[in-house]
Amino acid sequence: MSPAENLHPLDAALALEPVAEGRARGRTHPAWANMVGPFGGITAAQMLQAICIDPRRQGEPLALTINYAGAVADGEFEIEATPARTTRTTQHWTLALRQGDALCSTGTAVCAIRRATWSAPELAMPAVPRADQVPVETRAPPVEWPRRYEFRFVHGGWPDYRKAQEAADSRSVLWVRDAPPRPLDAPALAAIADVFYPRIFRRRGRFTPAGTVSITTYFHADAAALAAQGARPLLATAVGRRFTQGFFDQSAELWSDDGHLLASSHQVVYFKE
Amino acid sequence: MSPAENLHPLDAALALEPVAEGRARGRTHPAWANMVGPFGGITAAQMLQAICIDPRRQGEPLALTINYAGAVADGEFEIEATPARTTRTTQHWTLALRQGDALCSTGTAVCAIRRATWSAPELAMPAVPRADQVPVETRAPPVEWPRRYEFRFVHGGWPDYRKAQEAADSRSVLWVRDAPPRPLDAPALAAIADVFYPRIFRRRGRFTPAGTVSITTYFHADAAALAAQGARPLLATAVGRRFTQGFFDQSAELWSDDGHLLASSHQVVYFKE
Repeated sequence: MSPAENLHPLDAALALEPVAEGRARGRTHPAWANMVGPFGGITAAQMLQAICIDPRRQGEPLALTINYAGAVADGEFEIEATPARTTRTTQHWTLALRQGDALCSTGTAVCAIRRATWSAPELAMPAVPRADQVPVETRAPPVEWPRRYEFRFVHGGWPDYRKAQEAADSRSVLWVRDAPPRPLDAPALAAIADVFYPRIFRRRGRFTPAGTVSITTYFHADAAALAAQGARPLLATAVGRRFTQGFFDQSAELWSDDGHLLASSHQVVYFKE
Repeated sequence: MSPAENLHPLDAALALEPVAEGRARGRTHPAWANMVGPFGGITAAQMLQAICIDPRRQGEPLALTINYAGAVADGEFEIEATPARTTRTTQHWTLALRQGDALCSTGTAVCAIRRATWSAPELAMPAVPRADQVPVETRAPPVEWPRRYEFRFVHGGWPDYRKAQEAADSRSVLWVRDAPPRPLDAPALAAIADVFYPRIFRRRGRFTPAGTVSITTYFHADAAALAAQGARPLLATAVGRRFTQGFFDQSAELWSDDGHLLASSHQVVYFKE
């Protein structure tokens, strides 16, 4: 067995090979396949990883925006990560993922140097049963990537497509972690920010062609706080705001199991109906 | 009086001069000055405007992310707007605002062709008094740009710095429109998405050095819906999630006066404390 075969599936997907300053080569991994092309969360994680492995990086991920311009085909791709401007506290990056001449994704990211300051939570973690009191979901949609996560739905699980029952709200609340479990870091969190099935599925009670157009994730925790969370499940919530004219937006929150908001994430999603 | 002097201050700021394909020249306008450099909302509006005036544009604004990498100095700037990929439904743009060799802001945007689909609201507009029942705020912070807006605070107005009283929540709810009134369009909405003073001011009850690092706005309304809102006040809400290690995020919602969500907007903000 080669070393690569021992890698966690997330680490296998994140194994980028630097080919020049600011350019890294990767390849799609069948473990992360979605309906068409890879799971958007893994693309976001890979693009953030290109920054994380860049020796020019200063600070830790604070903000990440990824725009899905075209599907990534199975095979190799190249990520271009450019530090556009570095200040004392923040470093602004631009990102592009290409396959040959085809631009598949664009993005921007900000890394930041965090400092001890006045701190306060505002949003409180929802009151829910502990992860070990919520059964692991055994059903899965007929695509590969959800098998890379352990889902424990508190509210708003996979719709039962046989019933096709419309719901008045699109909210989901769940415990989630990588499967198999893996210590948390920023790329893993960037991927988890996209694990919510499109909120339109929940409102309509059935599958609808839909895909993320753009996702933005804000990181509220440094590497030490992510490491402290380890491989334990995160509490995750997602809800939509307005569904109209082929698009909707949804917002997600990702909490450590001791009640700290680790990331908030927002996306706008295309749907066909 | 030259024609330019008759322009609404927003239109004066948005008056970009195309200098080549994908390159437009603008200049800062004293009416929009902030503590250091211009109001972030006007920069976002100007960068979106560069797309709106580009003959290559297909569709209407759906998503806009602007990253504030460095302050814009008083004077001329150039905006580069590049259509990175155009599909049947969406058009992905990359954006940069430069002054000479200095990159001041980066960004990405998505324009989209909206179609009639299944539609549903989810979030409901907060129940508040009508705009004409809420007094116009007469106080203003000691910077110029807030004078370009008419604010009617329902909840969470400008902190009274003399009291310096900490607040348990950072929420503001207000009616807001351009001053003088001006019919709504996408660049105007992009600017209004940033009219909320940093939520840390409200939590701390006083001024704190703070600045937006990155803002993302999702547009839920087409040009006809924005035009139908006209120059009447929008209902606007903003709230923070977590304040830690020098950064926090806040989310905003902008509603038509007849209860439709026109835009949702999120930002991550630097603060020093």
